[in-house]
Amino acid sequence: MSLNVGVIGAGAMGTAISQCIAPNTNKLLLYARRKEICDDINEGHINCEYHPSVKLHKNIMAVNDLCDLKDVDVIFLCIPSSVMRQTMVQLNDIVSDKCIFVSTAKGIENKTNKRMSEVIEEETGRSAVVLSGPNIASEMMKNLPSATTIASIKKKDLEIVKNVLSTPKLKVNTNHDVIGTEFCGIIKNILAISQGICKGMGINDNAKFAVFTKSYNETKCIIEKLGGNRSTVDDYCGFGDIITASTLNVSRNHTLGIWYGQGVYLDEQTGVLFEGKNTTIVLKEICDKLNIECLTVNFVYDVIILKKSPKKAFYALWEKL
Amino acid sequence: MSLNVGVIGAGAMGTAISQCIAPNTNKLLLYARRKEICDDINEGHINCEYHPSVKLHKNIMAVNDLCDLKDVDVIFLCIPSSVMRQTMVQLNDIVSDKCIFVSTAKGIENKTNKRMSEVIEEETGRSAVVLSGPNIASEMMKNLPSATTIASIKKKDLEIVKNVLSTPKLKVNTNHDVIGTEFCGIIKNILAISQGICKGMGINDNAKFAVFTKSYNETKCIIEKLGGNRSTVDDYCGFGDIITASTLNVSRNHTLGIWYGQGVYLDEQTGVLFEGKNTTIVLKEICDKLNIECLTVNFVYDVIILKKSPKKAFYALWEKL
Repeated sequence: MSLNVGVIGAGAMGTAISQCIAPNTNKLLLYARRKEICDDINEGHINCEYHPSVKLHKNIMAVNDLCDLKDVDVIFLCIPSSVMRQTMVQLNDIVSDKCIFVSTAKGIENKTNKRMSEVIEEETGRSAVVLSGPNIASEMMKNLPSATTIASIKKKDLEIVKNVLSTPKLKVNTNHDVIGTEFCGIIKNILAISQGICKGMGINDNAKFAVFTKSYNETKCIIEKLGGNRSTVDDYCGFGDIITASTLNVSRNHTLGIWYGQGVYLDEQTGVLFEGKNTTIVLKEICDKLNIECLTVNFVYDVIILKKSPKKAFYALWEKL
Repeated sequence: MSLNVGVIGAGAMGTAISQCIAPNTNKLLLYARRKEICDDINEGHINCEYHPSVKLHKNIMAVNDLCDLKDVDVIFLCIPSSVMRQTMVQLNDIVSDKCIFVSTAKGIENKTNKRMSEVIEEETGRSAVVLSGPNIASEMMKNLPSATTIASIKKKDLEIVKNVLSTPKLKVNTNHDVIGTEFCGIIKNILAISQGICKGMGINDNAKFAVFTKSYNETKCIIEKLGGNRSTVDDYCGFGDIITASTLNVSRNHTLGIWYGQGVYLDEQTGVLFEGKNTTIVLKEICDKLNIECLTVNFVYDVIILKKSPKKAFYALWEKL
């Protein structure tokens, strides 16, 4: 039986997920905050702002009012982590008790340092499914093959969401390690910045990948200390996403690292949000609090936040390797 | 106390290792099979064939007779796996009982399917130290930072070899998992070919790295089944070397994969040795014998050995992901 599915956030990822899973659903309601995007989708079947060259599946209907999602069975939350809490407060009064929330946001809440599933649980009393993987949105829009990880403590929810997501082109691994899966998506940003700095500095490959190896192992240590499983880091949400963000030039955080490695200190006044900067500060706090010595976090913190010389920061890291 | 060290094989890696560790040794004897290379090194302090632009450390003396190595304490074996056995037969009568052998050869013996440390043990009765890591020789020659893994069942041997190798620029991790460390260097070639095929075909990044994630996990499964440790695969010899060989264009095996992915079937009559082809056949045998379903090995075997269409082979793999 196909379900009614809602997707909140008509950005690059929300639209791409909608496009992938529309054929699996009875009805897919895509919530766009901006009225003009909503109209574009309903009138021309195009999201002109994010995927201007791809026709949207006929099953996708855009809505501009969260109340329109009141009858959906599953909601994908494809919004920035900064607006997760306020969105959940609104949604909690709208959706049915049985509605399953799936978070695709890869971030941590400012000030509280909470994971998205924690925010969702606090505001709705429900445990969420989290989704994380090497999923470049533009490729998913074109129906190119892709794989992802979903995690939940509830077996039944995992089954339902896996059924909604799985297509011949989209492969889905499941696990019960919500903490590990969410933290993979968070720590990945630090690794992407770190490898970006190395690239920007023109560090040789042997050294760059030695640091990368150390970073990968440190990711496992942090996740284990935080209550997740080391093996989760080997899955799509970890290995796959880490390699994508750290070796290609598709990640903003990676590009941020390259700039700093090249000695270009971006002026925050540009108004561009680099989530990785916030993540760096948060992870530094977490590591310090839990007494975890993480060379990668220190390296990125030194260069991006303290604006130390990348070369000096690199040799400080190298000495401890 | 610094030791007398021998390095057998004055190719790219043997010369680079000599250059790295010469300052740590009392005397470094570099055995070159060819007289002209030996003369070049002793007369001009250059290995014209492999590293023509780098002056060799003054501590390095080339020799052309294995008997000259009779008094060394440690020997690095930087030779192709195909000549390991015959070299060990010769060496066994020459060196002292206390001499430690370190194998850097990343391959498996033809027909017997034996690892290099097994071949060494069979011919000399000694357990060898094995060395494996993301070590691009040209970078090591320039004294650029690099990291590597050494493994041995003997703690004392590990200590001695670690002392010989370690410099501010060369970091060394140790473990006791000889099987895992050696197989990392072997299976890595299959992954490099597999990722090469994907690149050659122009497969999208989400899919390429989904396959890469699966391959990484399959590497752990194979190594565990063969008696090694999964965690070894996360070290320099695994993660570091796998990323290097599979994402850069420095590996012959990766280039081989790219050719096949582009539909260019190399004519074996060119006389160029692609060790990865042999490795593919051997690993297929091992997996079949041990009843391990390894999608990556099957994919590479189908394309490189059976010359199936890369596209068909890829979709056969994707279906099972």
